[in-house]
Amino acid sequence: MSLDIGQLEQAKAGTTVALADLLQAIPFNDQGLVPVIAQDATTQQVLMLAWMDSTAIQRTVDEGYACYYSRSRASYWRKGETSGHVQRVRKIQFDCDADALLLQVDQTGAACHTNRDHCFYLELDLESDACTVRVTQDPPQTK
Amino acid sequence: MSLDIGQLEQAKAGTTVALADLLQAIPFNDQGLVPVIAQDATTQQVLMLAWMDSTAIQRTVDEGYACYYSRSRASYWRKGETSGHVQRVRKIQFDCDADALLLQVDQTGAACHTNRDHCFYLELDLESDACTVRVTQDPPQTK
Repeated sequence: MSLDIGQLEQAKAGTTVALADLLQAIPFNDQGLVPVIAQDATTQQVLMLAWMDSTAIQRTVDEGYACYYSRSRASYWRKGETSGHVQRVRKIQFDCDADALLLQVDQTGAACHTNRDHCFYLELDLESDACTVRVTQDPPQTK
Repeated sequence: MSLDIGQLEQAKAGTTVALADLLQAIPFNDQGLVPVIAQDATTQQVLMLAWMDSTAIQRTVDEGYACYYSRSRASYWRKGETSGHVQRVRKIQFDCDADALLLQVDQTGAACHTNRDHCFYLELDLESDACTVRVTQDPPQTK
């Protein structure tokens, strides 16, 4: 019988389920993907949001380094395989509906493809009524 | 002319764009939604991942409290409107591709619908080869 994620809502701390059963229960989207948040295990900065399918999750578990699925390239993407900016995985968490993952990682180099430390460098100005979004980090060329 | 998100990659810190232009440039999915990460502004705990459309983003900006779009209920969802567990928004950030948002929030009460502090209470055991996922927080009834 397949795992009912909803039943885990009432499960006590320490209850365990097999990863294989949880993977079967993940409500992947039409493309077979689920969103994954990468957070720096030390600074707690949220670094990026990317996507994984079942195979990418299993590779990440097996290899200990984040392996995403690139929607733009339609292929697996071992984070850092060309840049060297790998993500050593310290913790993998699933949310209550098992439709989002949270990775705690040790990030080597920049997490963002722009070479910024993280991807969330566009920040809304909430203090004024101007409703402007501000770039908060220089691109690497101007550093 | 519409905003090209890619051009912002090379923009220096302090460069601003209008929120309205950024909203136009967001690559919403087929359902018109984009994933949104809510992070506790104080503890830096990632609380949950939810979804917003353009209207939900604008409401969140205007009201200062997180308003998501519930896919299961197919309606807007002012977080905490029934539970009282509202999220006061301290910061709104967009990522490099403008296809993910990060909110820094002051969370009132539990972030998770199970009444746990946050949604990511299912944790993979990386230390053993057992590949089991463990519930890390009791449900509120057993506290």
